[in-house]
Amino acid sequence: MQPSDPHFESRIRESFARQGIMGLLGARLAKVEPGLVVIELPFRKDLSQQHGFFHAGVVSTIMDSAGGYAGYTLFPAGASVLTVEFKVNLLAPADGDRLVATGRVVKAGRTVTVTELSCDVYKDGRAKACAWGSQTLMRVEGRANMPVPG
Amino acid sequence: MQPSDPHFESRIRESFARQGIMGLLGARLAKVEPGLVVIELPFRKDLSQQHGFFHAGVVSTIMDSAGGYAGYTLFPAGASVLTVEFKVNLLAPADGDRLVATGRVVKAGRTVTVTELSCDVYKDGRAKACAWGSQTLMRVEGRANMPVPG
Amino acid sequence: MQPSDPHFESRIRESFARQGIMGLLGARLAKVEPGLVVIELPFRKDLSQQHGFFHAGVVSTIMDSAGGYAGYTLFPAGASVLTVEFKVNLLAPADGDRLVATGRVVKAGRTVTVTELSCDVYKDGRAKACAWGSQTLMRVEGRANMPVPG
Amino acid sequence: MQPSDPHFESRIRESFARQGIMGLLGARLAKVEPGLVVIELPFRKDLSQQHGFFHAGVVSTIMDSAGGYAGYTLFPAGASVLTVEFKVNLLAPADGDRLVATGRVVKAGRTVTVTELSCDVYKDGRAKACAWGSQTLMRVEGRANMPVPG
Repeated sequence: MQPSDPHFESRIRESFARQGIMGLLGARLAKVEPGLVVIELPFRKDLSQQHGFFHAGVVSTIMDSAGGYAGYTLFPAGASVLTVEFKVNLLAPADGDRLVATGRVVKAGRTVTVTELSCDVYKDGRAKACAWGSQTLMRVEGRANMPVPG
Repeated sequence: MQPSDPHFESRIRESFARQGIMGLLGARLAKVEPGLVVIELPFRKDLSQQHGFFHAGVVSTIMDSAGGYAGYTLFPAGASVLTVEFKVNLLAPADGDRLVATGRVVKAGRTVTVTELSCDVYKDGRAKACAWGSQTLMRVEGRANMPVPG
Repeated sequence: MQPSDPHFESRIRESFARQGIMGLLGARLAKVEPGLVVIELPFRKDLSQQHGFFHAGVVSTIMDSAGGYAGYTLFPAGASVLTVEFKVNLLAPADGDRLVATGRVVKAGRTVTVTELSCDVYKDGRAKACAWGSQTLMRVEGRANMPVPG
Repeated sequence: MQPSDPHFESRIRESFARQGIMGLLGARLAKVEPGLVVIELPFRKDLSQQHGFFHAGVVSTIMDSAGGYAGYTLFPAGASVLTVEFKVNLLAPADGDRLVATGRVVKAGRTVTVTELSCDVYKDGRAKACAWGSQTLMRVEGRANMPVPG
């Protein structure tokens, strides 16, 4: 996949840094490539439901951002990205010490982009798929100040 | 809708209190009725994306919990609830000072329960629908210590 | 909801008449109102899975068309409608002699429209909800010859 | 993936043969492997929307069946499979002379199985991805006469 903006990575890193929620959760951008973004999140007790696993909403939050930014890597400078919808299947309890969420562009269109969302949870160094889904993004032109994903 | 456990409300309030993420976000249970749960969340800067709106992941997190607990109101004591999947359409930017997410049971089955998820954002006292979706829950018997939604 | 094209009903009836699959299935347009379309389908053995119920794909086909046309009622003349995605929860076996699928606009936007899809199955005069879902539509301008839903 | 029933293929071919809708559409089972099923469908004018493309509902119908049977390959003899929900993103117009829908098991659980659904459309010998989605299946024990997918 060919990015139309050669500065896509810095554009995404700046946007990510401004998302208050990513700081609150403690998430970090682990990979930014054309059509692919990975976000990592270490476990903390206040990210959990009551049994010590990551809350599904936390899982979905970083999946949504990973997918939105994956689409955004392919957008021209000056465009912005909106999440139209996403769906997530929770495959297994998110029981572990770290989440790794991946967003990957499945189809990049002029207006609509579709991404695949997946999330692994790591425990004692072993990965397990804990969530999987899909997302529809919309490209909005000429509104560089519009909200990026989330 | 008829709850099979007359103590459903206290069961849900206790479970909610143990969800670390609800405390981190600052969410509170606003309503617990048979088949219907409402969760409210005041705005804070660290719940945002970079333009001062609630992050879509935050919106989805409280919608997922509202739906899960809505299903849980109808479960017998001793059962637990798992989110199998959910889908959310983002209808408008979540620009406001408060979110109000509602989960409502559409179909309560023996194993599978389907809920409707919706979320309004309030700004200057006026409500606007900002997200809408659906969720599939699974009832798990005899595992009272299993994770509830999230 | 206010249609921008006063001739929306005839526009939709003509489009429906050209859909080969609706003729093959035996579906008919039962209601066309601004933001709301109902499609009916009598049972036939060749619409079934192997136990005499309507096949879920048949249920989904008329739900998709009902939602697409519901959005289309609000579009200006000369625009066309594309289904971006849809999700359907199957609530109960579609065991009966007639399906009634309803598409209803939840949010009509300039580019993206979101609809609610529902389907009842009738047996011995009694209705039962058998499917429920959501759909994202895109309005495409200046392409009156583009495919409408489906 | 390991099927628990060595006769899974004949079980699926018999079930498919009983689905009236597959005969009406002209669909055929092209591949049946553990965790993977492919269904093909040649174009016919009465499978179309009004511009000569396959109707999205037809696309979804064979995707739903492909996914349901993919899950069914891994079920024990005597169990049956129900579609709980599915979601489909339509990636491109289904303009061609043949559809090839693939269902693939992503996660096989004791009660819930999740599948990936995809569909290519062939035109002049070239394949194009036209739809992609996900599906949740439920395994029902001891009800061999219950409806299989659809």
